[in-house]
Amino acid sequence: MAYLSLVGAGPGDPELITLKAVNVIRQADVILYDALVNEVLLSYAKPGAVVRFVGKRYGCHSLSQLEINHLIVSYARSHGHVVRLKGGDPFVFGRATEEIAAAKGAGIPVQVVPGISSALAGPAGQMIPLTSRGITESFWVTTGTTLTGEISADIDLAARSTATIIILMAMSKLEAIMDIFTGYGKSNLPVAIIQNSSTDREKVVTGTVKDIVFKAQHAGMSNPAVIVVGKVVDLKDMTGAVQQLIDRHEER
Amino acid sequence: MAYLSLVGAGPGDPELITLKAVNVIRQADVILYDALVNEVLLSYAKPGAVVRFVGKRYGCHSLSQLEINHLIVSYARSHGHVVRLKGGDPFVFGRATEEIAAAKGAGIPVQVVPGISSALAGPAGQMIPLTSRGITESFWVTTGTTLTGEISADIDLAARSTATIIILMAMSKLEAIMDIFTGYGKSNLPVAIIQNSSTDREKVVTGTVKDIVFKAQHAGMSNPAVIVVGKVVDLKDMTGAVQQLIDRHEER
Repeated sequence: MAYLSLVGAGPGDPELITLKAVNVIRQADVILYDALVNEVLLSYAKPGAVVRFVGKRYGCHSLSQLEINHLIVSYARSHGHVVRLKGGDPFVFGRATEEIAAAKGAGIPVQVVPGISSALAGPAGQMIPLTSRGITESFWVTTGTTLTGEISADIDLAARSTATIIILMAMSKLEAIMDIFTGYGKSNLPVAIIQNSSTDREKVVTGTVKDIVFKAQHAGMSNPAVIVVGKVVDLKDMTGAVQQLIDRHEER
Repeated sequence: MAYLSLVGAGPGDPELITLKAVNVIRQADVILYDALVNEVLLSYAKPGAVVRFVGKRYGCHSLSQLEINHLIVSYARSHGHVVRLKGGDPFVFGRATEEIAAAKGAGIPVQVVPGISSALAGPAGQMIPLTSRGITESFWVTTGTTLTGEISADIDLAARSTATIIILMAMSKLEAIMDIFTGYGKSNLPVAIIQNSSTDREKVVTGTVKDIVFKAQHAGMSNPAVIVVGKVVDLKDMTGAVQQLIDRHEER
């Protein structure tokens, strides 16, 4: 029966996928996977399943979103259960809406299996909590840019908030984003950049709004990277000073 | 050897846990688990492991955070590997910092295994994307309140942003939070409330900033619930109108 499952493959570590995602991959007649998916996960495919790369690779022609939508519909009709395997979580910057609409428009039922987003796993892998009682009460995940590639006006609001700000795929805009935080007097706010999180190529640089651009250039940091801006970055190494900060909040 | 693993149990569905989390639970000498953890997951414990509930249950005395910290340290010293199994993700409102600091302060190494937060799985289960190209470029996760229980000033910034706002454990503040959105002329912004997400008791109510308080009361909605405020809520049923909206953005 024609069916579409949008499945989150997690952040890179092949163990950071859910049991449900593995079960769904095992049942797939067709697997269409992206560039950030760990290919080890494709070994769960059943014998005879069609397994096809539909992501973007540097210097190669890549499929447009419209072409992927058409592939989903035609494979579902010809083969049955299509699994669209996406890095991270399908509903976090995953263009899931377009694929769901294409399938539903063709009368094909859809399910979504969530995954661990690198927005969460990146900081976790470096022991940076996204929230921490008495320090930060919320987190905001963004690419920092609008559809047309400009810096989102929301970054201005984010820089004024107490939220931990997590910015994905934004290395080319790092300086412009840091300038906005500087404009609100936050040049000493801690920043961490985590590249290739949860893989054996993981690399991290920490600093502050003031010096992170220089440090990131010096370390040759590039996408795919997770930028974390906020006081929680200081919790990374959990020093005695942090312990004192926590002790003050240790009532129930 | 004394060791602490903070492990995300996911949102409720016992299949929405990672392979890594299951492997770590299997190795545990002691499992300390919270109220929102699905108890089915405890069946992964090895024979002889100490399995102990340390969460809050209505009407019962519950352990303070300080008592839990002490339990972690003393069990790690007496039994070895302690798994602190938490609903959702340990670093999303999980008070992980306090437990890590307690363990590190006692010389006990710590690892964190991320989990699927209900902030992400709740909307996903209702087919509500957190971001959608051309509609919403970011999402903000908050409890809506500060340490002292007041409405966070960040809600004011959130209400002015284009972000999807996801508010956890805030049913008692729903009316006050909606009033802030109304103050910014957003009374028609769509809202969904998902209770007990990813379990067989899952319940959802949708409406707008203007009518959601009435609708939620009428449906008897209560915590644990995920409140989602933003245009993406309208994508829940993926109508033809949404298809047209998407078609306009279907360039690469």
